[in-house]
Amino acid sequence: MNRIYLDNAATTTLDPVVLDAMMPYLTTNFGNPSSIYSYGRESRLAIENARKTVAKILNAHPAEIFFTSGGTESSNTAITASVRDLGCKHIISSPIEHHATLHTVEHLKHAGEATLSYVNILPDGHIDMEHLEQLLADSSVKTLVTLMHANNEIGNMIDIHAVGELCKKYDAIFHSDTVQTVGHFPFDLRNTYVHFINGAGHKFHGPKGVGMLYINENVKINPFIQGGSQERNMRAGTENLYGIVGFAKALQLATDNHEADSNYIRGLKYYMFEELKKVIPDVSCNGDAMGRSNYTVLNVSFPKTEKSEMILFNLDINNICASGGSACTSGADAGSHVIRAFAGNPNRMAVRFSFSKNNTKEEIDLAVAKIKELI
Amino acid sequence: MNRIYLDNAATTTLDPVVLDAMMPYLTTNFGNPSSIYSYGRESRLAIENARKTVAKILNAHPAEIFFTSGGTESSNTAITASVRDLGCKHIISSPIEHHATLHTVEHLKHAGEATLSYVNILPDGHIDMEHLEQLLADSSVKTLVTLMHANNEIGNMIDIHAVGELCKKYDAIFHSDTVQTVGHFPFDLRNTYVHFINGAGHKFHGPKGVGMLYINENVKINPFIQGGSQERNMRAGTENLYGIVGFAKALQLATDNHEADSNYIRGLKYYMFEELKKVIPDVSCNGDAMGRSNYTVLNVSFPKTEKSEMILFNLDINNICASGGSACTSGADAGSHVIRAFAGNPNRMAVRFSFSKNNTKEEIDLAVAKIKELI
Repeated sequence: MNRIYLDNAATTTLDPVVLDAMMPYLTTNFGNPSSIYSYGRESRLAIENARKTVAKILNAHPAEIFFTSGGTESSNTAITASVRDLGCKHIISSPIEHHATLHTVEHLKHAGEATLSYVNILPDGHIDMEHLEQLLADSSVKTLVTLMHANNEIGNMIDIHAVGELCKKYDAIFHSDTVQTVGHFPFDLRNTYVHFINGAGHKFHGPKGVGMLYINENVKINPFIQGGSQERNMRAGTENLYGIVGFAKALQLATDNHEADSNYIRGLKYYMFEELKKVIPDVSCNGDAMGRSNYTVLNVSFPKTEKSEMILFNLDINNICASGGSACTSGADAGSHVIRAFAGNPNRMAVRFSFSKNNTKEEIDLAVAKIKELI
Repeated sequence: MNRIYLDNAATTTLDPVVLDAMMPYLTTNFGNPSSIYSYGRESRLAIENARKTVAKILNAHPAEIFFTSGGTESSNTAITASVRDLGCKHIISSPIEHHATLHTVEHLKHAGEATLSYVNILPDGHIDMEHLEQLLADSSVKTLVTLMHANNEIGNMIDIHAVGELCKKYDAIFHSDTVQTVGHFPFDLRNTYVHFINGAGHKFHGPKGVGMLYINENVKINPFIQGGSQERNMRAGTENLYGIVGFAKALQLATDNHEADSNYIRGLKYYMFEELKKVIPDVSCNGDAMGRSNYTVLNVSFPKTEKSEMILFNLDINNICASGGSACTSGADAGSHVIRAFAGNPNRMAVRFSFSKNNTKEEIDLAVAKIKELI
């Protein structure tokens, strides 16, 4: 059986059109973008054009867009700078954040640089907005709120505008980890109260090893990685030229095709859940999959049986790629901290399926038939 | 005139053989190396094979090799961890280090996390070993020595074994920024007293956006970028799969061809200096170019005249790529902190030419003829 790849929240194929855009910079146009001669300036121009493309799509200013090595570095930068440079002494986050956020805020807490509060998670996996407001109202020091836009495991989305308005009301710094939504949703950053968002190219058919950090022009921070004057002194190190070109190209393609692609992918998600219900009556969703949720992610819950406990293993044997949670933690094999945070039922098995424009209904049919056989 | 690229210390072409090795991972093999299914494990295998290749070449253990986004991130990691995790309260560095080092040590000093001493630079651009020993002997706290192996601007090399032995004698942590020498010189890390070295793929015909940090197995540090469990919990973020594969392939090629390539490139360097002396009798070298020096770098000093002050500009017009110093600082246009540190003659102009296996004598002849015309 051909491989059926249903783990697009972990990573996506590099779009051949994106690779084509990168190829000149992988071959003839190799100049160092920071070199002053014209050959270097050609590389610089490619980077600045990429920055303008990204800024325009997000409705931000090019001076607010910084390229990094990925979503994780971007989150580390935003959170650390909020504490060290912007004076935040209290961090409000949630227990279902990505480890790029959780480990960073916990590190800052343990280092005594900030106190840390977690907002409550409701049974449907959404954050408790009343609790968030209470935490903000009770905070007597400058506060950072860091909450991801769409959860990578269950797909639940915050209302970024509502959270932003709360942050505005209480004069908090707001970072949203948007790694699962940049390239999948439109952004209008000029009209969104948010200080930092981040993206990773490989989540939307761009290259691995390159990311983006949006820093609102109203905040001034110091670099996280220090050295040369690249990225206007904000991110040192020779620029990942082809990565940056690929990031912008992938974001452009995703934006151009957003309406058709998102409708198509949402259709696949709904279709898979309907088909699963036909063969496994007791299946349910982790999180608010059919509500305020990323259309790319479907996290389902099976009754735990000897067979279902082996489901990921057996899907793999059958060449179907799906995951129990985040790839970033799969090495740890400690179960999902996300599912545990709001739906810790030891009698259920969680499996994340995540979709892209490259998946088909036929693949879903084959996957569901195999799951029926396996459970 | 075709472009003559004499700025290989800034960046090098990506070798087509390296790109070929990367291509499967830019196209069909896109699985997330941290995913547990077999398709992800194929990517993991590619990374672990790359790690073994790099470790073997450097005579290190694979568990000592960590992949990063580049040389700058690696230096930041090593230096910051030496202070925060290894207890170094005093840093000894030199005024001619790369800014990835200088800005990091200055940041730690200003944050009050460590005191900072600079070793004296001798008139030939080498560090004063007696002063280094005196600084170490006078240091009453745990000390980090961070000195680059080969200077990126003038090519001067430290005797890494001699510095290592001094560090051993005084129980200091030793980091050497080897960005200009990994891929250009053999390493034997099992028999070198050094705790950290770093490399950047694009300095030896590998890809941009990927680097390496060697962490000696006797030191245990915390990650600089926090999040997922990638790189055995030492460097979070989805791995730059093709970058890592390309890094190892480029290092393998460089090692296989080291003897022939290094002799050839050294020949070009010496030839260029001889030819320059014929047409500009007053030309001299910045640093110990004909002594303990990187064979890839020739930093020459011209008498300052109206014409020589325009030399880089005019070389550019004539499609010859050379630089005044590091590309990483060229945006700043503040002159070279390296040259200033030991040979601050305001009546001289410094120009760095740096060579690769792709340069030819014919290119040198054309460049020298043009320089004669321009000065």
